[in-house]
Amino acid sequence: MESNKEEQAEATLWARKSWALLSAVRSQSPLIQCITNFVSMDLMANTLLSAGASPAMLHTLEEIPDFTPQVHALCLNVGTLSADWLPAMKLAAQLARKSGKPWVIDPVAAGASGFRLKACLELVELKPTVIRGNASEIIALANASVGPTKGVDSSHESTDAVESAKSLARASGAVVAVSGAVDIVTDGERVVGAHNGVAMMTKITATGCSVTALIAAFIAVDQTHVLEATAAALSLFGIAGEMGMEMANGPATLRIHLIDSLHGLDEERVLSRVKITSLL
Amino acid sequence: MESNKEEQAEATLWARKSWALLSAVRSQSPLIQCITNFVSMDLMANTLLSAGASPAMLHTLEEIPDFTPQVHALCLNVGTLSADWLPAMKLAAQLARKSGKPWVIDPVAAGASGFRLKACLELVELKPTVIRGNASEIIALANASVGPTKGVDSSHESTDAVESAKSLARASGAVVAVSGAVDIVTDGERVVGAHNGVAMMTKITATGCSVTALIAAFIAVDQTHVLEATAAALSLFGIAGEMGMEMANGPATLRIHLIDSLHGLDEERVLSRVKITSLL
Amino acid sequence: MESNKEEQAEATLWARKSWALLSAVRSQSPLIQCITNFVSMDLMANTLLSAGASPAMLHTLEEIPDFTPQVHALCLNVGTLSADWLPAMKLAAQLARKSGKPWVIDPVAAGASGFRLKACLELVELKPTVIRGNASEIIALANASVGPTKGVDSSHESTDAVESAKSLARASGAVVAVSGAVDIVTDGERVVGAHNGVAMMTKITATGCSVTALIAAFIAVDQTHVLEATAAALSLFGIAGEMGMEMANGPATLRIHLIDSLHGLDEERVLSRVKITSLL
Repeated sequence: MESNKEEQAEATLWARKSWALLSAVRSQSPLIQCITNFVSMDLMANTLLSAGASPAMLHTLEEIPDFTPQVHALCLNVGTLSADWLPAMKLAAQLARKSGKPWVIDPVAAGASGFRLKACLELVELKPTVIRGNASEIIALANASVGPTKGVDSSHESTDAVESAKSLARASGAVVAVSGAVDIVTDGERVVGAHNGVAMMTKITATGCSVTALIAAFIAVDQTHVLEATAAALSLFGIAGEMGMEMANGPATLRIHLIDSLHGLDEERVLSRVKITSLL
Repeated sequence: MESNKEEQAEATLWARKSWALLSAVRSQSPLIQCITNFVSMDLMANTLLSAGASPAMLHTLEEIPDFTPQVHALCLNVGTLSADWLPAMKLAAQLARKSGKPWVIDPVAAGASGFRLKACLELVELKPTVIRGNASEIIALANASVGPTKGVDSSHESTDAVESAKSLARASGAVVAVSGAVDIVTDGERVVGAHNGVAMMTKITATGCSVTALIAAFIAVDQTHVLEATAAALSLFGIAGEMGMEMANGPATLRIHLIDSLHGLDEERVLSRVKITSLL
Repeated sequence: MESNKEEQAEATLWARKSWALLSAVRSQSPLIQCITNFVSMDLMANTLLSAGASPAMLHTLEEIPDFTPQVHALCLNVGTLSADWLPAMKLAAQLARKSGKPWVIDPVAAGASGFRLKACLELVELKPTVIRGNASEIIALANASVGPTKGVDSSHESTDAVESAKSLARASGAVVAVSGAVDIVTDGERVVGAHNGVAMMTKITATGCSVTALIAAFIAVDQTHVLEATAAALSLFGIAGEMGMEMANGPATLRIHLIDSLHGLDEERVLSRVKITSLL
């Protein structure tokens, strides 16, 4: 009985925290610089706008010294990485860190090639605030290994990656998030699970990339609770997916209604739907 | 009373002119070359197609001597500019001018960095037919200054930028358009306002970029009335947004219904909804 | 009467073959590497996902030796080609062929410039499994000629290009598909027509690019019947368009409902709607 009450109290705290963070994003409209892949730029920008943030897709080396110090958070994504984009990513990460701004990396398909894995590991050495990937990507990073891959889709469950995520978090100093049927978030000690979302979200390209950008917006407004902000962003994006699914007939209508639902998310929905729990 | 009649007559003229221009775009299907940012390519191409124009996203230096002289108008956009794209933009602008084709520039986030501002100023020196930006961008260009920025979102109202727009128009020889709650269009002397559109359009990425491309299509079919064609494109895009908003539940459904509405726009809707007025 | 029965039997065979191929894509989820243009990446990835395939948009030269041998098919598209992407396309094509994987090329706007035509011809020399374009593109390739162009839109009917398609197929060894009101598919001897689809699909950018990627997924699961797999992909994409059109109010809602319809396509719809016929 007591344990039940504690659980309920914890659930309520998570829900209130999530709502407070979304409200802060909406009122502060943080400027989020994204250096990301060509596939996700459109959905990522629209995700940030619908959440109340202000996206800026600037990737050019020459601009970063002027621009990055002005942003509130940075989101890096290696989905369509090429050698000529990497220096800009590194410089932006360094400047973000130097000016005290949080930054997130999405190691898309980290294990797909030696080039890509090396780039991801070099970026992780620059001390990201959060690393968000699917299970295969987090395992590849934690093991520093290239392996058989389904491209950008995961061939593992998120729960298979808990130990990899914890060790990556401890080694990197970052909060690590693993997307999946349950989203896992860990700082190397605590592990929480965000249980929102629907399976069809994996049939829309760039949803993973977009939730990484949303995490950037959430940690921009609360740098002192990175694990909580990360879990909240994952949960709220999942709720938008659940609400979108109620109106969808397939992946394309889901994508549209997910964005509308994120834009329209109200306190009642957030408080009744957030499902974040301590796993360990 | 007389002034009222004059106003009504002027309003009717603007509406008829707008309808005539849209009809010309539909019947002539002008070929519009866009050298634009990665975020907007999809929505921009779909905007042009839905208006009846034929988009071509060709940005490669090697192709421009063959291709640009064949197009009916050119649209340049610096949203994700990098140093290696700038020579192609300049060559295309020069060839467009040389072959008597109108061209438009969208100075996205002009004040975000020294690199970007310099590139925009160099492009403006190549004599664009129209410059379209938000208030912050037009002010940055007019003052040739880098400053605090919200990235691609404006931190000024369009009406704050009227004097900047006029001076930029006089200095550059271009018609200058400033998007905002009221869209301002000026050739340095006349100033007109297009009063269509809905606020939620600012929550969709690339709407500004897309209306710039639409302006290119409109000036392609009437090079002799650039100010009028620019105001008409802004007004009709705004009307498509208003009609879309009647069916939308948020920014993503608005985006969809805006494009459908632009495609389906009929004479009755255009004549009853265009709101363009002389401001000065 | 007998001819009528034969025709019906042939129609049934095509429909069953099409359903079998879609089912194989859904159950095998082939990994399709796309090196494509910036405009189409989003819709192409979503098309592949909605059909049950797994897309990977990797274009970087350094990654191709590790990655391309793992994929099940490759899709090349020159829509926004630049000189620095061409070596990666060539290497990927060579590795695909070397490792026995089928590959497809979409020669977007092949006749728009000398640079583009030369690049397309060089790629065709690397022995694609399928070439899919509109009539103007196939004619330009077959004649190896640059000419007046409507950019990416065709200024010819597909039926004008049958002889060009046959001669290109014989010269290249590829199956050649020509999109249009009727989609034409030929191996240089047989010619079949796929009669599905709706006109408004030409008002959505990247539908041609996306059906090319779908062809890659279909030949990935049946390399021994390339002509059949190509015709089936064209027909099913067309059916998704027809079904989408029943729910659409314009090009943007068509795009959404097309993807949903492709995702939801069931045996009954496929068997009753596939219209593929022998033309010669």
